Amino acid sequence: MKINMYKGLTIKPPFFEIGPKGYMYSERVLKLAIAADEASRKYDVRIIFTPQYTDIRMLAEATTDLLVFAQHMDPLPVGRGLGSVLPEAVKVAGAVGVMLNHAEKPMTLSDLNKAIKRADEVGLVSIVCADTIEEAQAIAHLSPNIIVAEPTELIGTGQPSDEKYIKETTEAIKKINPEIQVLQGAGISNGRDVYNVIKAGADATGTTSGIMKADDPEEMLDEMIKAVRTAWDEVHN
Amino acid sequence: MKINMYKGLTIKPPFFEIGPKGYMYSERVLKLAIAADEASRKYDVRIIFTPQYTDIRMLAEATTDLLVFAQHMDPLPVGRGLGSVLPEAVKVAGAVGVMLNHAEKPMTLSDLNKAIKRADEVGLVSIVCADTIEEAQAIAHLSPNIIVAEPTELIGTGQPSDEKYIKETTEAIKKINPEIQVLQGAGISNGRDVYNVIKAGADATGTTSGIMKADDPEEMLDEMIKAVRTAWDEVHN
Amino acid sequence: MKINMYKGLTIKPPFFEIGPKGYMYSERVLKLAIAADEASRKYDVRIIFTPQYTDIRMLAEATTDLLVFAQHMDPLPVGRGLGSVLPEAVKVAGAVGVMLNHAEKPMTLSDLNKAIKRADEVGLVSIVCADTIEEAQAIAHLSPNIIVAEPTELIGTGQPSDEKYIKETTEAIKKINPEIQVLQGAGISNGRDVYNVIKAGADATGTTSGIMKADDPEEMLDEMIKAVRTAWDEVHN
Amino acid sequence: MKINMYKGLTIKPPFFEIGPKGYMYSERVLKLAIAADEASRKYDVRIIFTPQYTDIRMLAEATTDLLVFAQHMDPLPVGRGLGSVLPEAVKVAGAVGVMLNHAEKPMTLSDLNKAIKRADEVGLVSIVCADTIEEAQAIAHLSPNIIVAEPTELIGTGQPSDEKYIKETTEAIKKINPEIQVLQGAGISNGRDVYNVIKAGADATGTTSGIMKADDPEEMLDEMIKAVRTAWDEVHN
Repeated sequence: MKINMYKGLTIKPPFFEIGPKGYMYSERVLKLAIAADEASRKYDVRIIFTPQYTDIRMLAEATTDLLVFAQHMDPLPVGRGLGSVLPEAVKVAGAVGVMLNHAEKPMTLSDLNKAIKRADEVGLVSIVCADTIEEAQAIAHLSPNIIVAEPTELIGTGQPSDEKYIKETTEAIKKINPEIQVLQGAGISNGRDVYNVIKAGADATGTTSGIMKADDPEEMLDEMIKAVRTAWDEVHN
Repeated sequence: MKINMYKGLTIKPPFFEIGPKGYMYSERVLKLAIAADEASRKYDVRIIFTPQYTDIRMLAEATTDLLVFAQHMDPLPVGRGLGSVLPEAVKVAGAVGVMLNHAEKPMTLSDLNKAIKRADEVGLVSIVCADTIEEAQAIAHLSPNIIVAEPTELIGTGQPSDEKYIKETTEAIKKINPEIQVLQGAGISNGRDVYNVIKAGADATGTTSGIMKADDPEEMLDEMIKAVRTAWDEVHN
Repeated sequence: MKINMYKGLTIKPPFFEIGPKGYMYSERVLKLAIAADEASRKYDVRIIFTPQYTDIRMLAEATTDLLVFAQHMDPLPVGRGLGSVLPEAVKVAGAVGVMLNHAEKPMTLSDLNKAIKRADEVGLVSIVCADTIEEAQAIAHLSPNIIVAEPTELIGTGQPSDEKYIKETTEAIKKINPEIQVLQGAGISNGRDVYNVIKAGADATGTTSGIMKADDPEEMLDEMIKAVRTAWDEVHN
Repeated sequence: MKINMYKGLTIKPPFFEIGPKGYMYSERVLKLAIAADEASRKYDVRIIFTPQYTDIRMLAEATTDLLVFAQHMDPLPVGRGLGSVLPEAVKVAGAVGVMLNHAEKPMTLSDLNKAIKRADEVGLVSIVCADTIEEAQAIAHLSPNIIVAEPTELIGTGQPSDEKYIKETTEAIKKINPEIQVLQGAGISNGRDVYNVIKAGADATGTTSGIMKADDPEEMLDEMIKAVRTAWDEVHN
């Protein structure tokens, strides 16, 4: 009864997701991607980076360690569907994964189900967003590689998820499918927040506005990735 | 971690769903609803009936045993939302339940989650459609009252679900939440099909085109509800 | 090249639209509808009233002069389309018209085009919302009966459209099709606002929150409809 | 009352649109784009080419005369909107235009209105699809650069628009705004169809399946662009 999960790429924790959304693109996002690529090596932290579709190929070619993901894709086969994002095109452009069902690009349950299967089919890691714990459990049955557990009530509060929430969501998801990785979202605005979430037991976290709206995005990126490493070493060594 | 399920109304099996969709409305659907109301009493089979929104109040007032459900509703609170279907309005008009996430009215996972909670809040039984077994499992975590397991590949084939599929879907759903009832959909075109599905172990089934496109819809309705009773008695006595 | 406009019902100016949206339903909206029906006769002002779908039949049966409209409908033919609002069902339930393309229920251009044709086909007056003057001009080519010109920047400001805007939008629309009637929306919160808009030359205006959020909705309704009549007589006598 | 039209790039007729949709991408579409770039010079015909978003930059860099357009974009400002296609990102990647409102990616009237304004703002030629003559007239008020007049009933029939339809749509659009260019779509499957449409008076036409499903797409492309030139010269010399 369990559907297949894509096995072509395993993302070793700790990892971190940076979402440029529509804030940065082209040369500006290239600069940030190169900084992220370097930080990934410097701190031995995997970094998922979700640029505009138009920038995927350029970033994939300019980096070596960065995990370039699409922000979304449509569950269509090769053929019709003008204006859609074709899974095969995303893959061949150099993306290694795709984000699905973000609150700003919600999907029907049926399309989400199909898109996760298409990701497996073309060879893309799927990272799927959940608003509530029951949605995270629901999504776990669709066998994505990673679930983003992001309590809606914390988004934009600058108050990251606490230890109890992290433990509960992780257990709820792993109980359904222990192979799914969990990224704890919402509320990350600086290195201290990152430290706290990883210290509380998370394998991964991430941010958009924390870096996009920072005075010096590259400096903030370095601070956050460093915090991932520091907290991870304290918990795991 | 488990969210609440609406407990105000329990639908005793066997039961059957009749979906007029946009085929019948007003006086014509009233005639069918009255026939369904009588068949419900005659054969001691619960019947869920989903008319156009505009006909809910009229059918609820004209029947006593029929379970009138809305075809859909929006997860909005009282207030704004012009053009939406307000849960409170559906309830007060006389509906006792609501169908959600049909393939012709797919919902985002997040809206579906909210709509099931709203149904519980205002006092409506929720019946939620699933295209695949993994979607049925996913939906089970959202705690609806009933899940419609309708293998997409059988829709319109006139070939009802077989015993193995019925057993597997029922077990997959009940393992997550044993209180959820399962309706086996797809492929019902006459009394024989109904008999076969209930005989194969289902608690419930239903149809749209089987009745809507019949030469004599009321006669076909009687044939189908009678078949529910016959098969049910053979299995359970 | 000009498509047909529904000719079965002409709404004689001045007229006024009351939009209960999801604020009022069932018994509460019935009370308001009866008050509106009386005010319509008392002040000789036509009143368009857009209740929840579930309340259309009840209000149509309980009133004589009120113009009951659906909040929206889908451009589907009789048949499939579970969860949709069928034009024929709206008509037979007693509605005399339908609102389309409100900012809270936006339609694709293609669906809007089809829905206006369906309205004409089943015999419903169409009232279509426009956010900008160029959208109002665009919609005029689709031949609805009424266009709601509602400058987005004024919505909720409590500041109604001024004389210049009213004149410009009316001329822009009438130049394309002089048979289309224009309702000036946005920013109506009391009788004084209504008076000003009609005095500035409008044939019609309307409100949702002005009445829905009033301490005494029926009293506010009377105040507003009275203001329509007073201003209209000053301009036209 | 007339909104601005983007003036940064004028596409001199005759021109032709090739839509790879989701049929071709990456290396395969690059090959076709290079062939189109050569055909554009060889026959002095402007070619609009709409690849997947992920291929825009690569094609823009590999060609000199080809007019690379995005298949769609969202009317959002720089900032939030994960999963959306940002106008600025499309422009800086090398696109010179954007297609909007194709039947496979329909837009609400309000979003279409905003997207055309955004195209003008960032410097992109807008080409907007219309299903019916009245939709073409409606769109003309939104001041796009080009309107695709594609009678729905001809799509996929292999029967191109006739002289009467071409004349009527062109006049209907030009009467509203003479600066808008008109591309006659639907039903092009070979050079003969192309010849007939241009000979009948069109300034432009285009195809997806005619080239995508040809045994030798590059050969068919050459045949079609040659036919544009031949017909154009016969009409205009």
